[in-house]
Amino acid sequence: MNRFSWYHYSEVLIMQMIVNLKDKSYPILIEQGAILDIKKIIDTDRKIAIISDEQVPEYLIGIIKSQCPNHFVLRFPQGETSKNFQQYEELLRKCIEHDMTRKDAIVAIGGGVTGDLAGFVAASYMRGIDFYNIPTTLLAQVDSSVGGKVAIDVDSYKNIIGAFHQPKAVLIDPNILSTLSRRQIHNGLVESLKMGLTCDVQLVELFEQDTLDIPQIIERSINVKRQVVEQDEKESGLRKILNFGHTIGHAIEGAYGLDSYLHGECVAMGMLFFIEDQPLKERVLSIYKRLDLPKVPDYDIDILMSYIQHDKKSSAQTVSIVKVRQAGTFEIEEMTYEQIRNVLERGPYEK
Amino acid sequence: MNRFSWYHYSEVLIMQMIVNLKDKSYPILIEQGAILDIKKIIDTDRKIAIISDEQVPEYLIGIIKSQCPNHFVLRFPQGETSKNFQQYEELLRKCIEHDMTRKDAIVAIGGGVTGDLAGFVAASYMRGIDFYNIPTTLLAQVDSSVGGKVAIDVDSYKNIIGAFHQPKAVLIDPNILSTLSRRQIHNGLVESLKMGLTCDVQLVELFEQDTLDIPQIIERSINVKRQVVEQDEKESGLRKILNFGHTIGHAIEGAYGLDSYLHGECVAMGMLFFIEDQPLKERVLSIYKRLDLPKVPDYDIDILMSYIQHDKKSSAQTVSIVKVRQAGTFEIEEMTYEQIRNVLERGPYEK
Repeated sequence: MNRFSWYHYSEVLIMQMIVNLKDKSYPILIEQGAILDIKKIIDTDRKIAIISDEQVPEYLIGIIKSQCPNHFVLRFPQGETSKNFQQYEELLRKCIEHDMTRKDAIVAIGGGVTGDLAGFVAASYMRGIDFYNIPTTLLAQVDSSVGGKVAIDVDSYKNIIGAFHQPKAVLIDPNILSTLSRRQIHNGLVESLKMGLTCDVQLVELFEQDTLDIPQIIERSINVKRQVVEQDEKESGLRKILNFGHTIGHAIEGAYGLDSYLHGECVAMGMLFFIEDQPLKERVLSIYKRLDLPKVPDYDIDILMSYIQHDKKSSAQTVSIVKVRQAGTFEIEEMTYEQIRNVLERGPYEK
Repeated sequence: MNRFSWYHYSEVLIMQMIVNLKDKSYPILIEQGAILDIKKIIDTDRKIAIISDEQVPEYLIGIIKSQCPNHFVLRFPQGETSKNFQQYEELLRKCIEHDMTRKDAIVAIGGGVTGDLAGFVAASYMRGIDFYNIPTTLLAQVDSSVGGKVAIDVDSYKNIIGAFHQPKAVLIDPNILSTLSRRQIHNGLVESLKMGLTCDVQLVELFEQDTLDIPQIIERSINVKRQVVEQDEKESGLRKILNFGHTIGHAIEGAYGLDSYLHGECVAMGMLFFIEDQPLKERVLSIYKRLDLPKVPDYDIDILMSYIQHDKKSSAQTVSIVKVRQAGTFEIEEMTYEQIRNVLERGPYEK
């Protein structure tokens, strides 16, 4: 397991959390080796569509297949570009061809793209069937697999078509992460750090231990995410804090990300602009160094502003921005585009 | 108003019902002339996408447009075939082009097809925006506009892709019906009669008065529909009673309906097979005669059975069938395909 010496895995972690959303409540099982016994949490006694992108290793798919007596597998090309209308339609047509009924279920195994796409298929097939999520990237494990936001993109508009469709259960097996590169793991850890910075100072402190205890970080991150989702299922308020770092992060990703930066790396850059305390910023920069995160590149302010205005798709002249002054706390501020431009002029490293 | 002498319109009907679904509750306003003042029930102080099929008269669209200072109009070809992926995608892309935000709204004006298609667009645009429904056919007024079932078809699979997305309000103006033909009105009345037969004997009796009081029938029908939806929003139980007559009705529609029969006419035929009391069947047949409904054509049992099995898309070997023995009451029975075949062999007119 310990591909990277400074990662630490707790003895054997088994824990289950319940996301409490009344009749849409569901369990999240976090367990090393959990994928070897999915029946614990997934009702496999029906037809199961296993949906996955082509980058997920064949042996993982095989492990799931072997536990579902009545299954079929649908795979699609890896990457964000698969989150499109055509792929969505194709997967739905395959479900029809396989005579899926309202009582059958979809199991997604993959990263955030797989969860988003397969989840939207499950949300709309026969007006919604059971959906199980087995996230295989750290990013998906700590963030996107919990909360029910599913969607596809239209051209450069990310997640503009979709639904809120809560999974029936989420199964998180930290052992799966051994297939990921160090860079991919660090990419995911950024979203954990984000949740620590806004909501959980002890989670931030986990990043400052001698060794990184990944299952502990996953557990604490999901616990933050769970509480936020419980309080604001449909993203009408509190859930905005999950966008910490994302306004400028998405713009950097759009303008300079292609082939250069991963999503989490861009979010890390975006957060720097809104950490409002110099000692805290130094602390965060030390963590970034440890995670080998890239520095913010030189950027063109006009280009980033055009992405920000495009991304928000808001007729209003302000954007809700999350700021952190003290680890584990946040403020939400309505900022005008002019004010955001000033922040970009000031730069990420200056107080 | 009185295009058909035996229709009677109550003096001026104004009534508002609330569909009680907790945080998704919404009002239904039934009022003659209601479309002249939509602000009563629709927040028009934002961008409004008016979605309609091409058969809806231009002057009706004009009435809505004139009350929405910030609007755009999207129209699509009339008919069930517009409920497809391509049209769905096209409407969503238009919403993006018009910079619709989460706070904007869609107003559908048209029949059931318009409500289904525009409703699914509203359900999935930015994971769900406000949706208002102004049904223009009697069928849509008494049935499909209430309940939140929105969907598109895939080939011959009706409503197989969709969502439960409750409208923000439904505005029913019985005066609009003056643009409909006598046959279209009778087509819609069948769904009202269906609700009477299963749930409301007084609604059945309204069909036996000297003159048909359309607004009263609309009101009582919606009241039945409202109660059913309140008790079973996601169609897991009680809502099945709304399928009374639809199992065989859909099969007749699929096999013989094209260019020959309307949806309601086929449902009327389908109900006959499951009215389990001869005097009641005579009563219903008198009403059918009054409504000039067509007789059940000669049918091929194998063809109808293939439609029934296709329609149900169920791995189970039984279908939930609604039966009526006494007006205003129902029974739900699980029937095997063999039993349904026997019913078809017995025919619609024999006890």
